[in-house]
Amino acid sequence: MPRVTVHRKAHFNAAHRIYRKDWSDDKNFDVFSKCSNPHYHGHNYELIVSLTGEIDQETGYVYDLGKLKELIKQEVEEPFDHKNLNVEVEEFKDLIPTAENICVVIYNKLRKVIADHLDIKITLYETPRNFVSFEG
Amino acid sequence: MPRVTVHRKAHFNAAHRIYRKDWSDDKNFDVFSKCSNPHYHGHNYELIVSLTGEIDQETGYVYDLGKLKELIKQEVEEPFDHKNLNVEVEEFKDLIPTAENICVVIYNKLRKVIADHLDIKITLYETPRNFVSFEG
Amino acid sequence: MPRVTVHRKAHFNAAHRIYRKDWSDDKNFDVFSKCSNPHYHGHNYELIVSLTGEIDQETGYVYDLGKLKELIKQEVEEPFDHKNLNVEVEEFKDLIPTAENICVVIYNKLRKVIADHLDIKITLYETPRNFVSFEG
Amino acid sequence: MPRVTVHRKAHFNAAHRIYRKDWSDDKNFDVFSKCSNPHYHGHNYELIVSLTGEIDQETGYVYDLGKLKELIKQEVEEPFDHKNLNVEVEEFKDLIPTAENICVVIYNKLRKVIADHLDIKITLYETPRNFVSFEG
Amino acid sequence: MPRVTVHRKAHFNAAHRIYRKDWSDDKNFDVFSKCSNPHYHGHNYELIVSLTGEIDQETGYVYDLGKLKELIKQEVEEPFDHKNLNVEVEEFKDLIPTAENICVVIYNKLRKVIADHLDIKITLYETPRNFVSFEG
Amino acid sequence: MPRVTVHRKAHFNAAHRIYRKDWSDDKNFDVFSKCSNPHYHGHNYELIVSLTGEIDQETGYVYDLGKLKELIKQEVEEPFDHKNLNVEVEEFKDLIPTAENICVVIYNKLRKVIADHLDIKITLYETPRNFVSFEG
Repeated sequence: MPRVTVHRKAHFNAAHRIYRKDWSDDKNFDVFSKCSNPHYHGHNYELIVSLTGEIDQETGYVYDLGKLKELIKQEVEEPFDHKNLNVEVEEFKDLIPTAENICVVIYNKLRKVIADHLDIKITLYETPRNFVSFEG
Repeated sequence: MPRVTVHRKAHFNAAHRIYRKDWSDDKNFDVFSKCSNPHYHGHNYELIVSLTGEIDQETGYVYDLGKLKELIKQEVEEPFDHKNLNVEVEEFKDLIPTAENICVVIYNKLRKVIADHLDIKITLYETPRNFVSFEG
Repeated sequence: MPRVTVHRKAHFNAAHRIYRKDWSDDKNFDVFSKCSNPHYHGHNYELIVSLTGEIDQETGYVYDLGKLKELIKQEVEEPFDHKNLNVEVEEFKDLIPTAENICVVIYNKLRKVIADHLDIKITLYETPRNFVSFEG
Repeated sequence: MPRVTVHRKAHFNAAHRIYRKDWSDDKNFDVFSKCSNPHYHGHNYELIVSLTGEIDQETGYVYDLGKLKELIKQEVEEPFDHKNLNVEVEEFKDLIPTAENICVVIYNKLRKVIADHLDIKITLYETPRNFVSFEG
Repeated sequence: MPRVTVHRKAHFNAAHRIYRKDWSDDKNFDVFSKCSNPHYHGHNYELIVSLTGEIDQETGYVYDLGKLKELIKQEVEEPFDHKNLNVEVEEFKDLIPTAENICVVIYNKLRKVIADHLDIKITLYETPRNFVSFEG
Repeated sequence: MPRVTVHRKAHFNAAHRIYRKDWSDDKNFDVFSKCSNPHYHGHNYELIVSLTGEIDQETGYVYDLGKLKELIKQEVEEPFDHKNLNVEVEEFKDLIPTAENICVVIYNKLRKVIADHLDIKITLYETPRNFVSFEG
């Protein structure tokens, strides 16, 4: 059976700081430049969640995008939106919130709540010019 | 020989209704929500057709995008644009016009008129936040 | 006091038909071309509501955009989204649902629920290439 | 002489918090909701600076957009980009960094360095759906 | 009667060079920098034509956007698209093809073929970050 | 170890002509239509460079996007921006500057300066509707 991919875009705003706690501010600045600002900066993150699977012959859907919208709200938007990722989001207590790591964290959260016969791909825009993607 | 992909964007507007004829309006609403509105609703569909093949050494083209534009016009825009997909498009007489099914129908129509050594991928935006893709 | 404009984007999908009931299908086609298709077609409408007024010195807001989002939902999205404008929306029972007329109808609905000291401008995209605007 | 407007887009990322220092966290939350988060959140701000004036007959320019790019860099991007607006930007020490206030602050900074015969308009996107504009 | 604005987007690609024939290449480079490259460079120009007038009570249109599309094709796209503006377009034989001047030229061409009771505004994007507008 | 892809967008403007030196102007026009205009035309090229590799456990980065920005500037923007590709860019002295060939040239230039454990994909927009991609 042919497999089709369905995609849903979502959005959240957050503050973050890119730094290692075990490095000095100077060393952090050397490696991470202005992204290591101790007072934080922030982004409008644009998220695309893509699910690949067979079309259900009864409904014509691979996955109900209304349900996917709700899942993204519950797993990503509510815990991340208008938050300081370093300070308020458990997953980044000991993990640097680079776009790469945020993307993998979102993948892992959704992988737990979406059935295994569906492949997942996550695309995360940190700015309109910088973005990352991960498919497990 | 390396293979390159060429992509062409196109556009059509259409009305549709997501429902099964063998279900009651209530059952259709339970499953398909407001998308099952018996009076129809509609979308601006954005379409991307992607063809992958070797670069022709004489022309530097994988496929003349002017010709692809004409093929899309003939196979997709003329039969679908400003139409009611359920009522006026043969392929959806017995197939629910979900984005997934529209995407596969477009793939099959173009597969018949594009040479086999070219791979085809179809991406179809139903809204800026909901889209699907299919590569056979 | 200087006046600042705040803008909020929203979105709805609808079916419509551009035609006059007192004209024949042929005459409607002559004037409105494929937009007069008796089986309807549809669009993803993108809406921008712009309010101009003085900045409230206590809050730094001209108008709370969260409240504007709710007003747009109540006055525009709920009555128009996933609807057939000709058949299901009272305002278009005797008014052709061109983008121009939809834009004025939205202006009039919001004018009634937004205080007079704020100027209103409505911008409505029917497609990414065709749009209209109205400021009373 | 006819007057033409030239526009230049720019970009900066920043953290901020919408709150009044003389209100409790609860009162701030009542009025500003999640935007008052004490740990900050952030945005990718998109900025458009528009200058209106006569075309210089010698150069065909209203204003050299390369020079405007540099002015925006010096007056806006360097002081605001990757900063915490509340903590690190002088203008917001006693002014709530709402989009409205940021827009007026940028206008005032550019008004001082651009000749009076040119009109200035500032448009500031806080998110793709929320934006503000000010023309003095 | 309230006046509504209708907008139509169009597109053309062209090569150009920003320079004065009566200046040396060095002087042109001093003033116009890399835009004065004697071998030309080019752009995808995005054009928005905006017409403001009263809604025709019979059709619900301010101006038929299908007709405006054809006018833009005839007056702008055919003479400018895939052309070298300096060499092949009469209007720029003695006029520097800056975005400002191209915008005024397009305004003047359309002003001649659109009825006087309609106001015209032209917006021209030279790049996604640099654009100009003119309303007569 | 899972592999993540990081993407960086960049931009350049250039003039070009699609033609074969060993064909007559008439034959070039037959095959390449208006793209063969002997006086050149031009585009705003949008470029996406995508690198796939493992996340560095020390920094949380696959590749520092600030460094990638500089590499793209050095290898692509400086040699191509505001240039006539046929006349001024060595790689196209004997290679037709179609989007396909430009895309492969950019791939080859970056492949030499990026470590082998990273996969590279190049996406190049010639217009918003025509684009190409290549992954080696």
